[in-house]
Amino acid sequence: MTIKKLLIANRGEIAVRINRAARQLGIATVQVYSKADKDSLAVRLADEAVDIGPPQASKSYLNQEAILAAAKASGADAIHPGYGFLAENASFAAAVETAGLIFVGPTAQSIRLMGDKVAAREVAAAAGVPTVPGSRGRLESAEAAFALVETTGFPVMIKAAAGGGGRGIRIARTAEEFHHLMPQAQAEALAAFGDGGLYVEKLVEGARHIEVQVLGDGNDVIHCFERECSLQRRRQKVWEEAPSPSLTPAVRGLLCASAVALAKAVNYRGAGTIEYLYDDRSHEFYFLEMNTRIQVEHPVTEMVTGIDLVVEMIRIAGGERLRIRQDQVQVEGHAIEVRINAEDPAKGFMPNPGTVSALRIPGGEGVRFDSMLYAGYTVPPFYDSLLGKLIVHDRDRPRAIARLTRALAELEVEGLATTKPLHQALASDPDVQASRFHTAWLEPWLASHAETLAVATTPPSATLTSTTAR
Amino acid sequence: MTIKKLLIANRGEIAVRINRAARQLGIATVQVYSKADKDSLAVRLADEAVDIGPPQASKSYLNQEAILAAAKASGADAIHPGYGFLAENASFAAAVETAGLIFVGPTAQSIRLMGDKVAAREVAAAAGVPTVPGSRGRLESAEAAFALVETTGFPVMIKAAAGGGGRGIRIARTAEEFHHLMPQAQAEALAAFGDGGLYVEKLVEGARHIEVQVLGDGNDVIHCFERECSLQRRRQKVWEEAPSPSLTPAVRGLLCASAVALAKAVNYRGAGTIEYLYDDRSHEFYFLEMNTRIQVEHPVTEMVTGIDLVVEMIRIAGGERLRIRQDQVQVEGHAIEVRINAEDPAKGFMPNPGTVSALRIPGGEGVRFDSMLYAGYTVPPFYDSLLGKLIVHDRDRPRAIARLTRALAELEVEGLATTKPLHQALASDPDVQASRFHTAWLEPWLASHAETLAVATTPPSATLTSTTAR
Repeated sequence: MTIKKLLIANRGEIAVRINRAARQLGIATVQVYSKADKDSLAVRLADEAVDIGPPQASKSYLNQEAILAAAKASGADAIHPGYGFLAENASFAAAVETAGLIFVGPTAQSIRLMGDKVAAREVAAAAGVPTVPGSRGRLESAEAAFALVETTGFPVMIKAAAGGGGRGIRIARTAEEFHHLMPQAQAEALAAFGDGGLYVEKLVEGARHIEVQVLGDGNDVIHCFERECSLQRRRQKVWEEAPSPSLTPAVRGLLCASAVALAKAVNYRGAGTIEYLYDDRSHEFYFLEMNTRIQVEHPVTEMVTGIDLVVEMIRIAGGERLRIRQDQVQVEGHAIEVRINAEDPAKGFMPNPGTVSALRIPGGEGVRFDSMLYAGYTVPPFYDSLLGKLIVHDRDRPRAIARLTRALAELEVEGLATTKPLHQALASDPDVQASRFHTAWLEPWLASHAETLAVATTPPSATLTSTTAR
Repeated sequence: MTIKKLLIANRGEIAVRINRAARQLGIATVQVYSKADKDSLAVRLADEAVDIGPPQASKSYLNQEAILAAAKASGADAIHPGYGFLAENASFAAAVETAGLIFVGPTAQSIRLMGDKVAAREVAAAAGVPTVPGSRGRLESAEAAFALVETTGFPVMIKAAAGGGGRGIRIARTAEEFHHLMPQAQAEALAAFGDGGLYVEKLVEGARHIEVQVLGDGNDVIHCFERECSLQRRRQKVWEEAPSPSLTPAVRGLLCASAVALAKAVNYRGAGTIEYLYDDRSHEFYFLEMNTRIQVEHPVTEMVTGIDLVVEMIRIAGGERLRIRQDQVQVEGHAIEVRINAEDPAKGFMPNPGTVSALRIPGGEGVRFDSMLYAGYTVPPFYDSLLGKLIVHDRDRPRAIARLTRALAELEVEGLATTKPLHQALASDPDVQASRFHTAWLEPWLASHAETLAVATTPPSATLTSTTAR
């Protein structure tokens, strides 16, 4: 192993996760931390820890100079960025390499290419990966737009080329609506962005979110099959599973092959994910984007394939070739991950930092808990609300849901409201059990279950610190 | 599922384990407890809990009447005995059935038969399972004994037929020694037990302990491959793994087939284990005994096969047929279990009850911790010292050892000395890594490593309750 000492440029559960992988490879670890994280589990588990600044991420976890200085001071020879923060920042990846260090991830060029959504779509299309039908770029006239829409069919989204964050999007379900909305959209885009350019994309409704895990060494690429992450709230995944309960074997084969083709087209190095929309009525899938990092939901893939993805990405970063052949990757059973967030489902998922007064971690067969929690830990208010991920594995999906149910019953995070009641309600929901859902399913479900969730969440349990026998 | 409410007639980690299996099957649980265990995790996780008496096991966990009364009072329809206590007590199994309840285990007849070591040996021999060469019963004369020994070869053990607990055993390595020791042994046996009867058994030296897990439904039997448990201290297993690192595929096939033959010969029902001595130089194996219960080390089998053995035994007890075919049982990767005991390796493994002031449970990919520990738990002095089992799984044995090493580093049980330093020393030992060991290997190793273990154990770490940043 080329890498002797790895700097972990992240926090929370993924920092703990990376530390575990490094330890298994016999690599020493350096944990950087903001002042808000000085008592974190990641700091406690690492061989060395370096203070890189104040709590605000811009001054610590996003502070490239401070992180590079910490690497230099500690003698680290590689940096793992985790997810979020600097993980998909091409200039950081380049700066790490310029400093003579190894960036555990793809090349800066891959990050940049896939970060540009228009360019990524071009690469995907060139590799034969289906993309959502629509204009490749901006449309210069309403006539050109309509000519295009006649080929894609309705409904379509009309988007401002200069827009973003959902602004300037209109949905047309008929030709009449389309003709009516185009001039409005153009005028609005001009007013809002100073640019009346529009583009048009088919609206895929009721679709599922399916993504394929790939591993590449810059030369060869394998896939580790797919995950389904259709249960989302505000575009945040809350429940992820592998394999997808909605794919036929034939579609699975096509999907995974297309992911490998795309990753090969860019000589991909490291762990990556190609995300798709999947319409389970027509069996059509469409490229959404590629994430050039390890993802939050990677453990479900690990549970069903037995491959330690973080170990593999570190090995590859250290210059090793892929040591797993495609025919050695096999899926056994079913895995589900639920995100345990410091958010109160009874109060509109309001973030809920505070101190964990007592903690009971679920255990036993087929249960994994990836978390930075410990009893006495104070969740700082500065970062995202993910406290941990409860992952279960069993022989099939119904058994995995039963295992999830019992593991959730064991989990107790005293002192904070968490999303545990949400997952208990989901696990017992007939539609979830039958996997009848899509990416727009959860939000109306939450609205109609607000009362149930409110009851489940209050009062916070205090079973762990109680000393009375039952 | 016939069983609606299961009474758990045990304590500690196995009670927690059984509760988990019941929950996954949607079965309600009743936990019986002695006054020493009223604040136990098993009690906290169960749906109901019933006090069955004072701390002494004879007055609580071995108190058949109190347990049957608790079952009646709570409306339980089945009893799981776990291991130890009443698990292999044939009269208890019979009493449970007489009371109209289901005993989660084999029939009283199977327990009785396999509990009689001479009878079990007869059954094994009749089923074609190799037994240690020697006399089937007592030898009436020194001539008969010598005639027998000429067929078995040396060394042999001369045992008093009426002896037990290791008393009255002599080892003869040559014919001369044999002739010399026989009259002595006879005279001593007569003096000690009032019975000069002797029997003779070949001494298998440097052998390994290998055992085969079986599951039967009273009709059909499958095996779930083997475990190796050669690392033992005072006949207590301390480190168990699956698969055995010392078997050839051919021997594995024979061993597993012989276990199935034996279990089929008694129409075995439930989970059972057939234990063997295995000589890896001659590739010969010999039946030792059959354990008619779930064993402490069952999780390594679960990790490599994906079969939840406790779930399966409850299903079978509920009247279901085996639902796993032999060809569906496959071994993936390698699993190791180490026993975390409240014993101080620096002080001759002195039991070390006390209060857990803080606790850090290892997590992440391929790590399982089966335990009754929680922060604040007081280990009572009345029972065995097992606190929990750390089980790891990875693609092969070297990687499993690396995973064990990092999981042990994460594990912190503050407030008690535990056997963690022993396992850290074993995991880094070249002989253990090369699996060069047998059942008599560990004790001299401990003697020669006493100093290392003393250093590793003191002072007890206090990293978890420290509030200073590092």
